[in-house]
Amino acid sequence: MEMRTIDPKTVATRDLHQFLLGSVAPRPIAFASTIDEDGNMNIAPYSFFNAFSSNPPILVFSSNRRVTNNTTKDTLHNIQRTKEVVINVVNYNIVRQMTLASIEYPSDVNEFEKAGLTAIPSDLVKPMRIKESPAQMECVVDEIVTLGDKGGAGHLIICKVVKMHVAENVIDEQNRIDPHKMDLMGRMGRAFYVRCSGSNVFPIFQPVTEIAIGFDSLPDSIRNSKVLTGNNLAQLAGLFEMPSMDDAMELMKNKSISTMLEMPDRSLLVHNFAKQVLDLEGDAEKAMKVLMLDKK
Amino acid sequence: MEMRTIDPKTVATRDLHQFLLGSVAPRPIAFASTIDEDGNMNIAPYSFFNAFSSNPPILVFSSNRRVTNNTTKDTLHNIQRTKEVVINVVNYNIVRQMTLASIEYPSDVNEFEKAGLTAIPSDLVKPMRIKESPAQMECVVDEIVTLGDKGGAGHLIICKVVKMHVAENVIDEQNRIDPHKMDLMGRMGRAFYVRCSGSNVFPIFQPVTEIAIGFDSLPDSIRNSKVLTGNNLAQLAGLFEMPSMDDAMELMKNKSISTMLEMPDRSLLVHNFAKQVLDLEGDAEKAMKVLMLDKK
Repeated sequence: MEMRTIDPKTVATRDLHQFLLGSVAPRPIAFASTIDEDGNMNIAPYSFFNAFSSNPPILVFSSNRRVTNNTTKDTLHNIQRTKEVVINVVNYNIVRQMTLASIEYPSDVNEFEKAGLTAIPSDLVKPMRIKESPAQMECVVDEIVTLGDKGGAGHLIICKVVKMHVAENVIDEQNRIDPHKMDLMGRMGRAFYVRCSGSNVFPIFQPVTEIAIGFDSLPDSIRNSKVLTGNNLAQLAGLFEMPSMDDAMELMKNKSISTMLEMPDRSLLVHNFAKQVLDLEGDAEKAMKVLMLDKK
Repeated sequence: MEMRTIDPKTVATRDLHQFLLGSVAPRPIAFASTIDEDGNMNIAPYSFFNAFSSNPPILVFSSNRRVTNNTTKDTLHNIQRTKEVVINVVNYNIVRQMTLASIEYPSDVNEFEKAGLTAIPSDLVKPMRIKESPAQMECVVDEIVTLGDKGGAGHLIICKVVKMHVAENVIDEQNRIDPHKMDLMGRMGRAFYVRCSGSNVFPIFQPVTEIAIGFDSLPDSIRNSKVLTGNNLAQLAGLFEMPSMDDAMELMKNKSISTMLEMPDRSLLVHNFAKQVLDLEGDAEKAMKVLMLDKK
């Protein structure tokens, strides 16, 4: 893989900015609601944002100095004065309304009205929640860490969640958020967004406290497969132990498997069969057993 | 929309953790490479991670205290001692190898070997890069901010990018990263991941420095449409000015449009037509003109 090397000291800020935005993605979106001392409401989206702790519950986002003219934004002004913010999430249904709120309207313009969103009162802080957002987090600002003084410089606005509101219709029977019902939007580089629902969203199960055998325990004949991908090999390497040959032999009772294993050029067939078992059934143990029988 | 209210002071940490992870998503993944004082290599993925500034280029991620037993992780130990880390990104091709590296192997186990990934030297820091990752960022750690001392508590590991490496094959002719070629993975709640390529990734164009008319400038007949969604209305509200009625009248030269406008119950037809123009052509000006003719 040929790599392009980028030296932050010599590349233009605009280009470095885009390389970072294209690489550090997808980014969650904080649709931040604040008010100024006079009660003027402001909402604006920020994608330099994430959770960083759950106990205490800490969210951090950045309102950056503009690259073009090195000025700062209303959200930051408001937070510096009031130390409060409501962070609302952005799902598909409101993503274009969110982009309207990213327009740099004058400070006294109410972006709720411009974006056609509904302001509803918070329980514990002054800034309003966005009614249409499926999760709203009322926050007090613990600290603001300044990361620089030039255009493009960020701030770490460290927020503690004091109350959270989640739409009942995105919570499943297990009391957990269903990502498909939540239907969140993420931010990519340039003008790109990603919609996080449907077939692009899928689970990967890998226990982290039980020790898997790892790539280094895979036989060379498997590891050097011309058919299996890195993801396939990782599925096999994620097993907690190699199956015994006796257990593998049980598969010979399956007529189509035993027939395959009697073919003259069986290795390619076996690897393709194992790939199918991994990709379609997700059954790493069965795939490993078939691969073991190939080399028996 | 019925909302469930969650009070961080009374809900179980495990439940709050999952509500936060399900709401603050999709999260980018830092595949962090570090070494200890003895040169033992460690790689581990973290999704409490984002960029926060481009000038200086600052990445922040958190290695949290474990919720189960309140211990900390090798990555944090190593960074506290060496102040260096390489943050590699995770694309679809290596996502399962990444999950292998999330397994809690003993400190002296080399996760590069367990995950079947290739360690290559960095230019400016001691930790190795992950060759298979399409973007690798060499970082020095400026500061570590501790967010708490209980299980689930995070740290802000504030990293400055000193050198960046991006695969040539994900960069397009405009010198920008193509998200489809990059094919990044994002982290959702529970065991869910999102693949960020294909039809789920699309651009939304909305200039932020030019002032759009906003929802409050939309005529009531449009704003109260039974057909147009919030996203459709936002497309219309994103126009920089209302078209003139003279310009709208030009559309009457189109036979199918003029015929539609002569129908007795034309409003529903017109709104459906406008919705199609917005959804399929993305032409907000044309949609607005048709809607204006409906009320003429």
